[in-house]
Amino acid sequence: MDLSGIYRSIQDDLSQVKEYLRSIIKVDFPWLSEQLDYVVGGGGKGIRPALTLLSGSFYRYNLKYLLPMAVSVELMHTATLIHDDAIDKSTSRRGRATIYKLWGDEPAILLGDYLFAKAGEFVSDTQCPRVIKLFSQTLATISSGELNQFFGSYNLKQTREQYFKKISGKTASLFSLATESGAVLSEAPEKSIKILREYGYYLGIAFQVVDDILDFISTEEELGKPVGSDLTQGTLTLPAMLLMERYPEDNPIKRLFENRDDKDNIKQAIDLMRNSPIVDECYAVASEYRARACQNLSGLPENSSSEALVALAEYVVARKN
Amino acid sequence: MDLSGIYRSIQDDLSQVKEYLRSIIKVDFPWLSEQLDYVVGGGGKGIRPALTLLSGSFYRYNLKYLLPMAVSVELMHTATLIHDDAIDKSTSRRGRATIYKLWGDEPAILLGDYLFAKAGEFVSDTQCPRVIKLFSQTLATISSGELNQFFGSYNLKQTREQYFKKISGKTASLFSLATESGAVLSEAPEKSIKILREYGYYLGIAFQVVDDILDFISTEEELGKPVGSDLTQGTLTLPAMLLMERYPEDNPIKRLFENRDDKDNIKQAIDLMRNSPIVDECYAVASEYRARACQNLSGLPENSSSEALVALAEYVVARKN
Repeated sequence: MDLSGIYRSIQDDLSQVKEYLRSIIKVDFPWLSEQLDYVVGGGGKGIRPALTLLSGSFYRYNLKYLLPMAVSVELMHTATLIHDDAIDKSTSRRGRATIYKLWGDEPAILLGDYLFAKAGEFVSDTQCPRVIKLFSQTLATISSGELNQFFGSYNLKQTREQYFKKISGKTASLFSLATESGAVLSEAPEKSIKILREYGYYLGIAFQVVDDILDFISTEEELGKPVGSDLTQGTLTLPAMLLMERYPEDNPIKRLFENRDDKDNIKQAIDLMRNSPIVDECYAVASEYRARACQNLSGLPENSSSEALVALAEYVVARKN
Repeated sequence: MDLSGIYRSIQDDLSQVKEYLRSIIKVDFPWLSEQLDYVVGGGGKGIRPALTLLSGSFYRYNLKYLLPMAVSVELMHTATLIHDDAIDKSTSRRGRATIYKLWGDEPAILLGDYLFAKAGEFVSDTQCPRVIKLFSQTLATISSGELNQFFGSYNLKQTREQYFKKISGKTASLFSLATESGAVLSEAPEKSIKILREYGYYLGIAFQVVDDILDFISTEEELGKPVGSDLTQGTLTLPAMLLMERYPEDNPIKRLFENRDDKDNIKQAIDLMRNSPIVDECYAVASEYRARACQNLSGLPENSSSEALVALAEYVVARKN
């Protein structure tokens, strides 16, 4: 099923999320307005706000609180992307130039901070101390996860445990914020909150594993950014780890990490990957997490949103960008 | 009066604020712990947390909420300094190397984000929707103020109104968050909240004007960072504006802004400033805001904290660093 099919039951409310996002463009500074327009008009998939709305639909679907929460989650996501691009010195994302590329790292830092702040304003509109605290804890987890990744870059000795801890911090934490907050704001019982939190968490892991695969097997056109970006940053992902294990001696990743300027090794690693069974093995890992995400959804009240969550999990693994 | 005298009535509680700040060092990542130790052990003056505690002492002095608020305000301040140093590429602050200088801009961005998040966690411990929202609004004001400064750098045509709007955003907003939140959390009536908010706001303006003067007349040893930093960043402060007005033709600031690499002009501008009456004129402006800050304090209940606030305002104008 494509995303618009999955989002059908919440499409009007997702449109409202986009309206809110556009509303923050109307600020005092014309140049800031231009930047924000650029950022929030960037056309993400809207997975995180959709997760909040879907997770909030099993009990009391209270849009007054779910909408600002969904907006907040998407703004936090956008802010982290802007900071990530400045950190990685990435020049394109979603097929467009990044804020970093357009204006430099100084505005990227400040615009990210501004969007974190706006995200904080929206989450405070939920008037729910639990999700407000969860919001800040998630941001702490994401930024310490990114710090972890930065200081662990170009390290060939990463364990699987370290890899999963890293993607848990940088990706799964925000997915589980999106689902848990939706559940809490809809006054779900603790048992259901746990099911939805875990769904979000495991879905986030599956999402990141697939991201890490696509960085090897997709095209720049499909991804909207260069392939091999992770290797360029010295980030050892799951497919890269498996490639290192399979070819421990004369390995292009090993050569790249030992001599960062020799970018030919990136192309060689990509070629080697595409001709190996490692891609399928990584997809099997992603599918395992997809299954784990969905395994307890039957414990929720009967509702078409369960099917949407299952379909979304399938989409996350099958997507091409 | 020196700071320890001004802080006497709250010194035990300020020590607790420092304990809280140290407590966030104990995190999972040894290298992050090292960074945080470095940051929160940096020895700021603690003016902002002191403002929260003093402002919270006129009605119900409830440490359970005032302490996390004071910690939150100081963490937000620290996070903005770390980001500012990365943006300005500043290598020293408070006589020590900056995070940017030590580890580069990537960890500076992420560590700032981490501290914003921890600040958000502490403010959520106040369980007060009003100050939680105020906290996020203040961060939005600060970062848009900094964006304003960045995009307005090297602009010789700045008006006084633009200058005061800029320092209102980047400095006074956090001072008024510190005082207003203390008042709100102590259950002060709206009239008193207004008095303390305005005290913080005008004190913040006075503080920044003095900062801008010291950047010309102090020494690197006293400041803990190079003098003339504002000119190096292309930031036109009040003293610089007056120097431009007084010497409109052959002016070193004009020459510097037209040819940024000719750093000799910074020294010439400093020499010209020190031999002019402009410094006294700027101090008169700072004193005017100090007086405005204190003018309504008599409307608060009788309490030794009023004297401390007056003394703190005098300290802010008289300080040498």
